[in-house]
Amino acid sequence: MDSKRYQAGQARLNELDPGAEQHLKDTFQAICPELADFIISFPFGEVLSREGLDFKTRELATISALTAMGNCQPQLASHIKGALHIGCQPQQIVEVILQMAVYAGFPAAINGMTVAKTVFQESGIIPTELSG
Amino acid sequence: MDSKRYQAGQARLNELDPGAEQHLKDTFQAICPELADFIISFPFGEVLSREGLDFKTRELATISALTAMGNCQPQLASHIKGALHIGCQPQQIVEVILQMAVYAGFPAAINGMTVAKTVFQESGIIPTELSG
Amino acid sequence: MDSKRYQAGQARLNELDPGAEQHLKDTFQAICPELADFIISFPFGEVLSREGLDFKTRELATISALTAMGNCQPQLASHIKGALHIGCQPQQIVEVILQMAVYAGFPAAINGMTVAKTVFQESGIIPTELSG
Amino acid sequence: MDSKRYQAGQARLNELDPGAEQHLKDTFQAICPELADFIISFPFGEVLSREGLDFKTRELATISALTAMGNCQPQLASHIKGALHIGCQPQQIVEVILQMAVYAGFPAAINGMTVAKTVFQESGIIPTELSG
Amino acid sequence: MDSKRYQAGQARLNELDPGAEQHLKDTFQAICPELADFIISFPFGEVLSREGLDFKTRELATISALTAMGNCQPQLASHIKGALHIGCQPQQIVEVILQMAVYAGFPAAINGMTVAKTVFQESGIIPTELSG
Amino acid sequence: MDSKRYQAGQARLNELDPGAEQHLKDTFQAICPELADFIISFPFGEVLSREGLDFKTRELATISALTAMGNCQPQLASHIKGALHIGCQPQQIVEVILQMAVYAGFPAAINGMTVAKTVFQESGIIPTELSG
Repeated sequence: MDSKRYQAGQARLNELDPGAEQHLKDTFQAICPELADFIISFPFGEVLSREGLDFKTRELATISALTAMGNCQPQLASHIKGALHIGCQPQQIVEVILQMAVYAGFPAAINGMTVAKTVFQESGIIPTELSG
Repeated sequence: MDSKRYQAGQARLNELDPGAEQHLKDTFQAICPELADFIISFPFGEVLSREGLDFKTRELATISALTAMGNCQPQLASHIKGALHIGCQPQQIVEVILQMAVYAGFPAAINGMTVAKTVFQESGIIPTELSG
Repeated sequence: MDSKRYQAGQARLNELDPGAEQHLKDTFQAICPELADFIISFPFGEVLSREGLDFKTRELATISALTAMGNCQPQLASHIKGALHIGCQPQQIVEVILQMAVYAGFPAAINGMTVAKTVFQESGIIPTELSG
Repeated sequence: MDSKRYQAGQARLNELDPGAEQHLKDTFQAICPELADFIISFPFGEVLSREGLDFKTRELATISALTAMGNCQPQLASHIKGALHIGCQPQQIVEVILQMAVYAGFPAAINGMTVAKTVFQESGIIPTELSG
Repeated sequence: MDSKRYQAGQARLNELDPGAEQHLKDTFQAICPELADFIISFPFGEVLSREGLDFKTRELATISALTAMGNCQPQLASHIKGALHIGCQPQQIVEVILQMAVYAGFPAAINGMTVAKTVFQESGIIPTELSG
Repeated sequence: MDSKRYQAGQARLNELDPGAEQHLKDTFQAICPELADFIISFPFGEVLSREGLDFKTRELATISALTAMGNCQPQLASHIKGALHIGCQPQQIVEVILQMAVYAGFPAAINGMTVAKTVFQESGIIPTELSG
């Protein structure tokens, strides 16, 4: 797995989240280690590292799709964190999620915004509430 | 329906597709004219005309979500046309759709690319095939 | 298949569409005749014929769900026709579909309304357009 | 935001859940206050307050769609509570959810019924289990 | 409910999970006891007990669909447990879930694999992690 | 693109449908030739050619998922044809699709069976109807 694709994927994933490669490997080691290899080699190594669209716009497009699909909240949280890490503005992320009220309905937008709120609180972008 | 929201929506929709407002009105006139009013006033007048994210990125985010959802092909075609009309590069559109192979699966990406191919052919961006 | 459940289903389906039983049988005869039997016995014979909710509201709930799911347009058309046949008002059907703009997004509502428009035209509720 | 639409939405939302407006404002205040405004003005102020379909049937249609979509459980719980609050019978809600086994599959109906069970327990409609 | 269909369903369900019938009855007793009857009589009694496809392949097909749909995680866990119980190999289950990366996207496969990991840990197929 | 992965994918795809590689290349040549490369290298070269699950069961699992997702009918038709080509029995395909009535609802099963019916007619497995 030290192929060129894997190395390109490592580099791309590392930009989003420096600890993600090890976390993926640890998570799936006992059940399906190839899943971590595939994630790094194909999405990150072959797709997200392509030219033709800048990485920030790629992440906003991913946040849009995951909000609309509405059943991938762990991945949505990771990509919101990653988007912030590569320099997307919080307001851009909020706008993309809000826009999904139009295309996927208000529940999708509300649930996406709730994920973003948690990530923004953990990142110190907005204050954490005292309770509940 | 000459409210400020409606006028903002008219202007925004007009940027994407100058004939769309009349087409929407004609389409739903006999069954539910308020649907056309709502589309113009809320998505276009209140959401897509917001600041905080440029219009081109908004359209790429919409193309991403509609490709991932996979059941809105008329709207996907309209937004691809609109994205080209406001200056998105064809390659950016292709990249967003291709990226959905990762997040929504290959069938979603293939079906989205097929819609884009038809729009690109109609727009003269790529040549029309002789048959089939 | 002359069981009590099947007979209850026949009666219920017949209320919605007098030709539907034969059409279902013909459609799936060569590939899977049990599918027609199941549709008549379980959905119509056991679920839609239950007490506790009137048939008109059941049909409006089905139209709502099929519009929101967005990938069942033949079934949506059948249930709109059936709903009209048992006495749902066209305006009630329009309202349920329009409401899905809120919960499933505007594309779902637009595509559902387009199905309803065709059914309403075929039923003479709204005039057929001369072209396009 | 003291527009006529917002006021109509406040009134409609207040019928379903007297505390919801403040809860929505508090929830999204730090990240996107416009989301609460939009929810009150558009879904509640412009759609759910329309004539042509009674509010109880609107809520049953929403419960149907959210059960079928299967990825909006917080919203499903809120609308079940709201439906009870405006006078829908528990049995009507149960029937709509059960019916989704037909249109969206048994997992969707089971997961929707599980949400309803929790709401019904909290509302004292059915007894709370001692454990598990 | 001592019909032939119900008895066939009992037998089939019992093969997957000997405690499931009582659990289903207990779960829905207070809100909708017919849901448990329907689950046993129709899916288990009429569909999953059919000839023409062996039970192991049926369970792998169900695991595939539930992974792809992505919003039925309790049912996915139950069917993974059941598949192991009737003799599906852990590797077959892993392969079906991994394959969904292709058809439904990586988030669906990752979330399905996470469910399988928990079931495999509970079943002693893979070791439980010490933390996190 | 003459890598080992691509060659493995060519071989696997060729088993399902000998003309598919050229068709894929022709279809996306003008808009995104990498999409054809990706389809051959990743799904066919890396996933569907893995050991641990036989190819027939893989195809039945794909037919199951595509039927349940309900928005990928071109891909469903291709995989039904491919499954027949590698020796899946027509009855196995019918059973998998019928089973989706349970997990994804009757509309998904009906629409999937309609796709299978067309493929079976084209393949001479069942007779073509004279009309309609």
